[in-house]
Amino acid sequence: MTALAPHPDRLFPADPGVRDIARRLYAEVATAPILSPHGHVDARMLADDEPFPDPAALLITPDHYVTRMLHAVGVPLDELGLARDGRPSTADGRAIWRRLCEHWDVFLGTPVRLWFETEFSEVFGLTEQPSPATADALYDQLSATLADPAFRPRALFERFRIEVLATTDDPADDLAAHHRLAADATFPGRVIPTFRADRYMHPDEPGWAARLERLSAVADVDTTTYPGLLEALRRRRRAFAEAGGTATDTGVIDAGSDPLHEAEASRIHRAALDGTLTAGEAAAYRRNLLYRLAELSAEDGLVMQLHPGVLRNHHRPTFDAYGPDTGHDLPAVGAFTRPLTPILRDFGTHPTFRLVLFTVDETTFSREIGPLAGFYPSVYAGAPWWFIDTPDAILRYRRAVTDSAGFTKTSGFIDDTRAFCSIPARHDMSRRVDASYLATLVAEHRVSEEDAAVLARRLVDDIPRTTFRLG
Amino acid sequence: MTALAPHPDRLFPADPGVRDIARRLYAEVATAPILSPHGHVDARMLADDEPFPDPAALLITPDHYVTRMLHAVGVPLDELGLARDGRPSTADGRAIWRRLCEHWDVFLGTPVRLWFETEFSEVFGLTEQPSPATADALYDQLSATLADPAFRPRALFERFRIEVLATTDDPADDLAAHHRLAADATFPGRVIPTFRADRYMHPDEPGWAARLERLSAVADVDTTTYPGLLEALRRRRRAFAEAGGTATDTGVIDAGSDPLHEAEASRIHRAALDGTLTAGEAAAYRRNLLYRLAELSAEDGLVMQLHPGVLRNHHRPTFDAYGPDTGHDLPAVGAFTRPLTPILRDFGTHPTFRLVLFTVDETTFSREIGPLAGFYPSVYAGAPWWFIDTPDAILRYRRAVTDSAGFTKTSGFIDDTRAFCSIPARHDMSRRVDASYLATLVAEHRVSEEDAAVLARRLVDDIPRTTFRLG
Amino acid sequence: MTALAPHPDRLFPADPGVRDIARRLYAEVATAPILSPHGHVDARMLADDEPFPDPAALLITPDHYVTRMLHAVGVPLDELGLARDGRPSTADGRAIWRRLCEHWDVFLGTPVRLWFETEFSEVFGLTEQPSPATADALYDQLSATLADPAFRPRALFERFRIEVLATTDDPADDLAAHHRLAADATFPGRVIPTFRADRYMHPDEPGWAARLERLSAVADVDTTTYPGLLEALRRRRRAFAEAGGTATDTGVIDAGSDPLHEAEASRIHRAALDGTLTAGEAAAYRRNLLYRLAELSAEDGLVMQLHPGVLRNHHRPTFDAYGPDTGHDLPAVGAFTRPLTPILRDFGTHPTFRLVLFTVDETTFSREIGPLAGFYPSVYAGAPWWFIDTPDAILRYRRAVTDSAGFTKTSGFIDDTRAFCSIPARHDMSRRVDASYLATLVAEHRVSEEDAAVLARRLVDDIPRTTFRLG
Repeated sequence: MTALAPHPDRLFPADPGVRDIARRLYAEVATAPILSPHGHVDARMLADDEPFPDPAALLITPDHYVTRMLHAVGVPLDELGLARDGRPSTADGRAIWRRLCEHWDVFLGTPVRLWFETEFSEVFGLTEQPSPATADALYDQLSATLADPAFRPRALFERFRIEVLATTDDPADDLAAHHRLAADATFPGRVIPTFRADRYMHPDEPGWAARLERLSAVADVDTTTYPGLLEALRRRRRAFAEAGGTATDTGVIDAGSDPLHEAEASRIHRAALDGTLTAGEAAAYRRNLLYRLAELSAEDGLVMQLHPGVLRNHHRPTFDAYGPDTGHDLPAVGAFTRPLTPILRDFGTHPTFRLVLFTVDETTFSREIGPLAGFYPSVYAGAPWWFIDTPDAILRYRRAVTDSAGFTKTSGFIDDTRAFCSIPARHDMSRRVDASYLATLVAEHRVSEEDAAVLARRLVDDIPRTTFRLG
Repeated sequence: MTALAPHPDRLFPADPGVRDIARRLYAEVATAPILSPHGHVDARMLADDEPFPDPAALLITPDHYVTRMLHAVGVPLDELGLARDGRPSTADGRAIWRRLCEHWDVFLGTPVRLWFETEFSEVFGLTEQPSPATADALYDQLSATLADPAFRPRALFERFRIEVLATTDDPADDLAAHHRLAADATFPGRVIPTFRADRYMHPDEPGWAARLERLSAVADVDTTTYPGLLEALRRRRRAFAEAGGTATDTGVIDAGSDPLHEAEASRIHRAALDGTLTAGEAAAYRRNLLYRLAELSAEDGLVMQLHPGVLRNHHRPTFDAYGPDTGHDLPAVGAFTRPLTPILRDFGTHPTFRLVLFTVDETTFSREIGPLAGFYPSVYAGAPWWFIDTPDAILRYRRAVTDSAGFTKTSGFIDDTRAFCSIPARHDMSRRVDASYLATLVAEHRVSEEDAAVLARRLVDDIPRTTFRLG
Repeated sequence: MTALAPHPDRLFPADPGVRDIARRLYAEVATAPILSPHGHVDARMLADDEPFPDPAALLITPDHYVTRMLHAVGVPLDELGLARDGRPSTADGRAIWRRLCEHWDVFLGTPVRLWFETEFSEVFGLTEQPSPATADALYDQLSATLADPAFRPRALFERFRIEVLATTDDPADDLAAHHRLAADATFPGRVIPTFRADRYMHPDEPGWAARLERLSAVADVDTTTYPGLLEALRRRRRAFAEAGGTATDTGVIDAGSDPLHEAEASRIHRAALDGTLTAGEAAAYRRNLLYRLAELSAEDGLVMQLHPGVLRNHHRPTFDAYGPDTGHDLPAVGAFTRPLTPILRDFGTHPTFRLVLFTVDETTFSREIGPLAGFYPSVYAGAPWWFIDTPDAILRYRRAVTDSAGFTKTSGFIDDTRAFCSIPARHDMSRRVDASYLATLVAEHRVSEEDAAVLARRLVDDIPRTTFRLG
């Protein structure tokens, strides 16, 4: 059995002098409250505040960062608890946990392992590394822990020092859980919705018309016309803002944003409902809607987050059997400078508009995102995301973006996770890596240690507050 | 008030052993003369040798590296001295300087701040960091300094140890300032023109016909025909060479270089003058002209510099109000291997032809520029440029290009600046970073320290001399 | 004269603490047997076991890594021994060797120099650096050495501790040399063929029909029809497997893999033989064949290696004079996620299928290859290749790919060389760089030293064995 004991100096530079500086800078922010302005935790979890289910259902099955890697070494997804063809998995929690323990070594060197080690140790108090030999004892320990009221969602929310947690929600969502939380005087936390209208932007996808209908009901406006859809989105944005939301999010395959004349957009909208849509029309419609979302952001001040460049559901057979978000959304080439020209021409210097650009294509950091954030007052360079939310990629991001955008025009860290218990570990990794980057600047006499300490604090405080208008 | 005192070890590696090596290698080149084979200083400034205007007009307003970043944090460009809609800015020098001092922290970690710190300290003798509290005193000190004859352009040229300074000039420029300088026995410096014909390559741009007319007058050849334009360019290249020029420069959106038959090029030329040009024809004409510029370089031996991949004037409203070169020329994806195929097929091994490739897309360093320079005798890997003329990107360039092109086929540093007083700081940064890179190779036993010292000296001496045929 | 004495710590990190860890990790693998699952050594060389020819013919002329760089600094290829226009070079071995010695400094900082230094020192016992002054003495020493029976191919094979050496072979190759080696009880080494069908995938290339005929003869099946070609490829794959082959290789310009219906593929096949093929049809045919090769791999279990993204024979005049593989195959943009969709949809989770992805475009490491290998059980992230088979690029690869694919889903090192005597030097470089990467993870407390030692051993043993099904 090998001890599980995350080192207090983990992720700091190896050079003793630089490490000392990194330690001091990290100490400035190690216990700062967590601002989580972008993520995928379900607000109902906190509203209900029920005990978490078994360890596997909490830690493994819903986390596609974990399941995709086990799948990559040959573990079928149904053995990890995923429902296949609509039938619940027959694997019980203990069996699923054992699979993780058997394959624990395939995570060596990956951020998932580092997050897990911190989470297992600091949240759950485990002291031994997972392995076939320790699997059952660890499972028992985790199960017992989860039964403890101190491990209910709200207790952990407080213990994690989360000040703001943003969820991601469909425009048709009634935000009931958010309202319950806001009305509950016993819960002082701030849980805010994020407006994500992706599912209305693809008139070529099955179910688009049905989604329009649902949205129509919630927004109380006819969405069978294009102006009606825009009005419904506008109303729901207002409802999100009233529920505390400060931002929207959009994940599209590319950042193309050419506006259409209303007549043309209306024509395509009708064609989609009539079933005569072409692929070109669908793309034009999507790009127009991206432009309109920017226009709405300039109008209502909700911060626009943009996450382009991911090919969703790459492996059709897995999608057919297991559904979306099962580990095979995969990155493609990214681009911003050209495709965002229409949006930035019309709103780039608009006083209310704000656009945070995220990418899974690192080449855009120094080539596009940094330069755009370094000119347009509205543009912010989003933190590395998804596949590149890792110690090395965060360093590459800082080294690439700081040159042309400094620190002020970066977004601050976002954890983007549905794994609630990993939130502190993820923010801690980010704080350590930023401290290491700043320590190197100090050691190379590029920034004074005094200025670096100010920057370290700003990166977890006023920078995300300002970027996401958290107040 | 915080001291302004650039550290003697700035930009060297933090590891004590490697830093010692870097110090020794840097010492080999710290005071070497400056060869500046590519930049944007105006030759008239040196020919007239008038005192510089106020500090803001010297240091801030004309430098889009500085103004774009202040714009990105919300300062309108007219508050930085830029003329808007043809009306001069009402902001006076002191007010503009204060804006920089107020926002000094947004430059933390950026190369602009490092250049400024070195320049303020070593050129102007400032000893305090800019801040709202120090703004006025620093402004007064700078103003007083600029009145000193020792701070006139020629005195600084000498003090900066500039051996060669290349300007960038339109083919229709009569090079009067260059001739005045050459004829002035009291000025021993070498200021040479660079032939930049970009404005003749885009028959779809407003003003193209008028520019042809001006060129016709200077070159004394009819440019209303395509062969006439080629002949005019050939003659002006000869005039530039006679004025000491050794190189040309071209900045186009892509490196496409397919030649056209003369009849087809002539047809498009006429169509452009007749106002019947299509977008496709304009692109074909531009690519043909790029090929012809290569052909002329093979003929007359002027070194061809190529800077593709920048989308000019990305924000149309800023262009309309403030004109070009105002901070929103923004990078797009770069490519060389494919689009340069015609030029390299025909001139790649030509004994006279020489092509220096620059990029703002770092992905091309290891993928295209290094391999091309590592095969074609005519091709040189240009130093990082513009957004990537930074300590980290220079290191990335060396790590990417050395593998396939070594040092001999790199261009040597170019400062590419219109900020005359920043020239020593920029070259100093480059020398420090190259010393650091070489020191790492030495410390990792990849190159001997003796060889590294030779390379350090060559990088600021025979390598740029050879690349740019400076003699 | 400068001593040639590769430092025992070469390529290890400069920080003393990290270097100590790297030394210990390297010691775990320094003398491990060499598995070379991808390369270009000719099996006949080992079957014949004749003495090597003169030093230049062994070390310089056939190695385009070396000749391209000398060409880039102005040495014509015929002065390096390459036959021009079908006429043998008139340069003798000593003259060629002198050219390398004259230009030895242009290799400073490149991997070619590091490989040569290790090879010259450790294989041939040279103790002085090449230079004009030492050229003749070194040439004499090398010539004498090559006459020694201990320097015949098989003796070196054993001395190099090569356990498996995979060659690269045309499907029409009769594999006679492999059979001779297998039948020779005095040679215990394992030399296995790799099936590379590139030359049958381009029906637009001159000689395609003639190649089909040769293949037809070897496979004993009519290849004038498309199904006949598929059957011939299937049969030859079986023959390769029976000769010990475990893998195929494919080098195409892009990874497009859209299957065609058999009727359409047959139609294009006939059109190609009839001389009526279009460029679009040729590309469609090639992409269909890539899909069919994947289908065959799923069927027979030969590991599919894919090396896309190289523009072959970029400089037409050099190709016309000197033929292929003469240093001007040059990289272009790479892509995997999109173009491999058809193959991965149909075979991505197939239990027998295995696909190793190589690239010369580093941007694909974190964006595409890592994420694909981190989901699909069949996909492995190939080691850096060709222009990026270098110390810095190997580090970048690890830093980019480990995040999403860990170590288990990487391929292990491949030397990809036709320079037999450089094989130990290349594997040694890889082992040193991997030890350095792992040492950094240990020093940053991201992986324990115990785990790192296990990983170091796995990277030269079970990881390549598993990836390439070496048994």
